[in-house]
Amino acid sequence: MTLAPQALRDLVRGIFARQGMSEAHAALTADVLVWADLRGMGSHGVMRVPRYVDFIRKGDLNVRPSIRRSHDAPGCVLLDADRAAGPIAMMEGTRAACEKAKSAGIGLALVKSTTHTAALGYYTQTAARDGFAGIALAASLPLMAYHGARAAGVSTAPLSIAVPGEEEPFALDMASSMISMGALAQARRSGQSLPEGVVLTAQGEPTVDAKTASIPLPLGGPKGSGLGFMAECLASLLTANPILAESLEQTPASKRHRQNGLVIAIDVARFVAPEMFRAQVARLTRGLRELPGDEILMPGERGSRRAAQQRDAVSIPDSVYDELKTL
Amino acid sequence: MTLAPQALRDLVRGIFARQGMSEAHAALTADVLVWADLRGMGSHGVMRVPRYVDFIRKGDLNVRPSIRRSHDAPGCVLLDADRAAGPIAMMEGTRAACEKAKSAGIGLALVKSTTHTAALGYYTQTAARDGFAGIALAASLPLMAYHGARAAGVSTAPLSIAVPGEEEPFALDMASSMISMGALAQARRSGQSLPEGVVLTAQGEPTVDAKTASIPLPLGGPKGSGLGFMAECLASLLTANPILAESLEQTPASKRHRQNGLVIAIDVARFVAPEMFRAQVARLTRGLRELPGDEILMPGERGSRRAAQQRDAVSIPDSVYDELKTL
Repeated sequence: MTLAPQALRDLVRGIFARQGMSEAHAALTADVLVWADLRGMGSHGVMRVPRYVDFIRKGDLNVRPSIRRSHDAPGCVLLDADRAAGPIAMMEGTRAACEKAKSAGIGLALVKSTTHTAALGYYTQTAARDGFAGIALAASLPLMAYHGARAAGVSTAPLSIAVPGEEEPFALDMASSMISMGALAQARRSGQSLPEGVVLTAQGEPTVDAKTASIPLPLGGPKGSGLGFMAECLASLLTANPILAESLEQTPASKRHRQNGLVIAIDVARFVAPEMFRAQVARLTRGLRELPGDEILMPGERGSRRAAQQRDAVSIPDSVYDELKTL
Repeated sequence: MTLAPQALRDLVRGIFARQGMSEAHAALTADVLVWADLRGMGSHGVMRVPRYVDFIRKGDLNVRPSIRRSHDAPGCVLLDADRAAGPIAMMEGTRAACEKAKSAGIGLALVKSTTHTAALGYYTQTAARDGFAGIALAASLPLMAYHGARAAGVSTAPLSIAVPGEEEPFALDMASSMISMGALAQARRSGQSLPEGVVLTAQGEPTVDAKTASIPLPLGGPKGSGLGFMAECLASLLTANPILAESLEQTPASKRHRQNGLVIAIDVARFVAPEMFRAQVARLTRGLRELPGDEILMPGERGSRRAAQQRDAVSIPDSVYDELKTL
């Protein structure tokens, strides 16, 4: 199914508005999800809408959040997101981090009690477009094996870093797992087999069979699970809203969907003239592109190219479109 | 060769003092290097001393640096390290980041023109011991393949994150490559073969033969090389001291050894009571250790255990000891 990006945004915005979100919140949430589809990250795109609606119905996602600021200091702030949709909470965090960075040089926003974070790159690239280096991470449920364990212990710990580029920002947007949950679900649907050393069964045995594949292994063993451990310490323990321990102990609180996030912004102009920074980034990319190799892409370039191709018409699976129409 | 840690520190301190370092600088540099040996990271330990002495003789490492602060703001500062030894520059950066974090909640120190960074975990763990979450990274020469290229394009981009623990801090300390330069050198000496997909020859061909192995591949393909790209943007381009582009263009400046670094500190006490944070970290580690598995270690735990074992006697290769005695 192919449709104009604005039509898809309008469709999704309408769904969230009917669920009770303000027009502004519905539009922003729609924009963040469609952005992921445009960049070819369907797993973080509008296919998530039905789950968001489920979260709303269960009371896990609050469509009329009162986001409260606390722990204000020259360089930091904590936002209690009051179970807002991830895009609402994380964009508020991004704006707060950039605002702090404008006066302090660096800004930190801790985002407590949000819901599904959506594509982190949206937030870091927004910061980068405004002249900041942006760093964001999110803490979520135990989905990925902890190194050495035969069970899920940490989240797949997404991490994004973006910097201003000559035109579009350059942005790293990675999970700390060997395979993302989205790609795993994709493999499960298609039945294609997986490489060795990527995933465990629900019982904790190594497998290459997509049908029994369940728990992604951490990228680089202790490196990936270490990143998951630290994401929880930074985003969840600094906000006094632990997710992993609650889930591992199977407390009642762990039954509710919730996430925490963190955004750091560094004001480029505080250190170097922005045009100088962008020129040096361009110089670096030139040097890397001239290396011998077949397809040398800069961080985020694949997504930017895909978004350019889909500027007028974005494709989503028919089944997803049907679900959206029903909602 | 096995000797008391203090004897090894004294030996190394003496070498640097004779090279013209102040007693304080010589002692700190020795402490950082011996710390790595104690934790079983010999590749970052005293075996580096002869290279440090080479750097001094060539004028790349300045034994009497005037470290200058600039770009001061409530949350950040830039230190021009004046080619100081990495441990001197990075510890000054760590202290500056923590001091900024104490008043602003978060602190950033950019460290320009340092030399070999040594073990990043020393700096983040120092911050964590003082009650901060510490994040550090370093930018260096192109040593690792850029994803898609058949040549080195980015550094192995070490990254460390540490948080206060109940006793010792927990610390992630990782390179962004499939194999560290230290482990690669080790394999080359022993002649043992390497796993597939880990390394290229100097000509850019995949190999498992340690003898021809030269260029580590990035961890997770574009993830590892993306981390390398961002480390350069943050540590080198914000300090207007590009390393990668200079090397890729083979400019005269690229012939000199130099690195840049970055330290971020977050004041835990600004957000939660430190004892509460430590208790929650302990709760998390308890949950993870109870997962099914054979050896489940927390970030940095292997190093802490090794350091405890070697408290009274640290072992270093005989050849390294002989070199130190000669110096």
